[in-house]
Amino acid sequence: MTAPITGLRVSPEISRPFSPREFAARLRRVQAEMTTRELSALVVTDPANMYYLTGYNAWSFYTPQCLVVPVEGGPHLFARAMDAQGAHYTADLGPHQIHGYPEELVHRPDTHPMVWVTKTAVGLGLLPTGPGSRVAAELDAHFFSPRGYLSLQEGLAGAELVDSAELINWVRLVKSPAEQHMLRTAGRIAEHAMRTAIGAIEPGRRQCDIVADIQRAQTSGLNGLGGDYPAIVPMLPTGATAGTPHLTWSDRVMHSGEAATIELAGVHQRYHAPLARTLSLGPPPKHLVDCADAVSEGRDALLEELRPGRTAHEVHAAFTREIAKHGLTKESRIGYSIGIGYPPDWGERTVSLRHGSETVLEVGMAFHVILGMWMGTWGYETSEPLLVTATGPQRLTNVPGGLTIKT
Amino acid sequence: MTAPITGLRVSPEISRPFSPREFAARLRRVQAEMTTRELSALVVTDPANMYYLTGYNAWSFYTPQCLVVPVEGGPHLFARAMDAQGAHYTADLGPHQIHGYPEELVHRPDTHPMVWVTKTAVGLGLLPTGPGSRVAAELDAHFFSPRGYLSLQEGLAGAELVDSAELINWVRLVKSPAEQHMLRTAGRIAEHAMRTAIGAIEPGRRQCDIVADIQRAQTSGLNGLGGDYPAIVPMLPTGATAGTPHLTWSDRVMHSGEAATIELAGVHQRYHAPLARTLSLGPPPKHLVDCADAVSEGRDALLEELRPGRTAHEVHAAFTREIAKHGLTKESRIGYSIGIGYPPDWGERTVSLRHGSETVLEVGMAFHVILGMWMGTWGYETSEPLLVTATGPQRLTNVPGGLTIKT
Repeated sequence: MTAPITGLRVSPEISRPFSPREFAARLRRVQAEMTTRELSALVVTDPANMYYLTGYNAWSFYTPQCLVVPVEGGPHLFARAMDAQGAHYTADLGPHQIHGYPEELVHRPDTHPMVWVTKTAVGLGLLPTGPGSRVAAELDAHFFSPRGYLSLQEGLAGAELVDSAELINWVRLVKSPAEQHMLRTAGRIAEHAMRTAIGAIEPGRRQCDIVADIQRAQTSGLNGLGGDYPAIVPMLPTGATAGTPHLTWSDRVMHSGEAATIELAGVHQRYHAPLARTLSLGPPPKHLVDCADAVSEGRDALLEELRPGRTAHEVHAAFTREIAKHGLTKESRIGYSIGIGYPPDWGERTVSLRHGSETVLEVGMAFHVILGMWMGTWGYETSEPLLVTATGPQRLTNVPGGLTIKT
Repeated sequence: MTAPITGLRVSPEISRPFSPREFAARLRRVQAEMTTRELSALVVTDPANMYYLTGYNAWSFYTPQCLVVPVEGGPHLFARAMDAQGAHYTADLGPHQIHGYPEELVHRPDTHPMVWVTKTAVGLGLLPTGPGSRVAAELDAHFFSPRGYLSLQEGLAGAELVDSAELINWVRLVKSPAEQHMLRTAGRIAEHAMRTAIGAIEPGRRQCDIVADIQRAQTSGLNGLGGDYPAIVPMLPTGATAGTPHLTWSDRVMHSGEAATIELAGVHQRYHAPLARTLSLGPPPKHLVDCADAVSEGRDALLEELRPGRTAHEVHAAFTREIAKHGLTKESRIGYSIGIGYPPDWGERTVSLRHGSETVLEVGMAFHVILGMWMGTWGYETSEPLLVTATGPQRLTNVPGGLTIKT
């Protein structure tokens, strides 16, 4: 029933960003963890996890797709038939490890692609059925719907289906040297995009024109180094709307005397370096200056703690202790793990820098430390993408911190 | 337990694109359908459906959120605490209809935001519990995870939880005059973006620089008319990779003699007009010309059928009949319903123009007719966003059809 495989296996036009050796090492770590958890197979639906294990990279996650990872042997990728060719080009998988489901299964009320996928994977011996075996799936991934889950469960005919609890996301936490290189490169693009944004924000310009400048910097990248699409579009909350973080741009014009927060990312080979700053057009009000100064002190204090051996909790505590001296509190987390990102999020959904988080920091972890103070009718936001090294945090970008003032 | 509501209820900086009367009419249609299906409540997680019913618009769908629609009375929105303020700004809801869940619930292994949301909604009398009542949820929506679903189910304590089967998506199928205006405006931006793309593709230019030009056209829009972010980034499969549809750009340079397919959308107030063309840099090979000509004939034939009273099946049949005369077949659907879009998709997930689809076309429906011929190592793609009117299809864009040749 698998659609015929046509065309080239490998395109001369697509270079794969990681070596087969790197993918093999990643798979080994995932399968070791599966063994520990007594899992026969893992069904991977998070595009970032599929990319991590195979390099598969396409905007195909809007229809059901998954990677089935047996506890021994190679993983198999299942996607819509029209996307199978793209998988041959980008994924470090043999031709027989890629399966396209029939086009007629898309958006049907009477059946779901995961029925076909499960049946095929069972037939290939990748998924066990019946009581006594255990399969994990990513029950909180963005592109795994309840219908997909129920179809998988039914096809397993009694095999236990459990939550992977972000198994692969946690394996991704410590970055290899090759991944650290990707993050540093993403940081260069982020820096370029932020400098472009700061230059572009002027009184009289429309938000949408400013965002277009930012996007050009993100997409064109630098000389000899093209940019990739970010998991989240540039955010530019301005004026009163800066009091809430996730509103996107409009075509209203910027005014003298108002402040804008800018949140964006530089992206290279799907690795993200997010970066935020707040810019005041003209002299800022005292409450904004005071808030920015307090946050800068909090940032310096937390950076002292962001080193191997400390916990996420300790990093957070250093920040809250410092801003409390200025009468400030922050309810939401102050950062999270970063690496590979696909829409709608560039976070890894693992470590949050917050109260009670007992993860111990290690060399090779990467975080987006984001200090957003959303005060209802105004806001201040600043952030840094950082790599944990033996000697402390390494900044991935170099843009002056604190409040940016343009007069 | 709801986070305190702070700040302004309505921002002078955000204009709401639809009238309260329009939202009331939409809610009435949805609740009428709920009555027919004997549903006590509907849990809405598709951002496009949340926007359709309330106008809520923010990049907040990467953490769990939903709109709970009781069969009688107003809907209530549940989102992360930091996003509640944005909901006050953008949604046509009273202050007591917006609830922010505590920040500490984000990305936790031991509990899920939907546990809190379900409990709160039950407490407010929005969701029934216990046997005998029926609640629907969107079991194939992109941002409703199995963990969210299982949390909801547990909180309903025996009330039946069924699939909404895209209830709201189907209500969205016929567009109001105000929505048709949004689509026409989106069409103007799509046309501008495609003309920009055709101008930008030149030998020696990097794909990423061409995409940056396209994004500027999409985001800046036109004079006096800003653009919005598309649900899918611009696609530019080129050379051999044009044989598969969903690969994104790279930084490789365009060459004379190769063909690129361009797929993009113009967006206005979240309404999407997608548009695709194929461009040959230099004289095209005969197989590409022949394919384009056959597809043009197929397109003309199907447009004759795209009118009130015909079925989606008949539209599809007209196309396949025509291209069969040239020895061509196409496995995948030739179009789908469009309107509101959020990443990762601009389709409505309802009507597909394909064999066996018995939906009868009506005035006010809108389709993206996309004729993609992915031939393994090369491809041809052309599309039109169209509105069904009493007299036949109305094109939302005006860009010459057929193969575009630049010499």
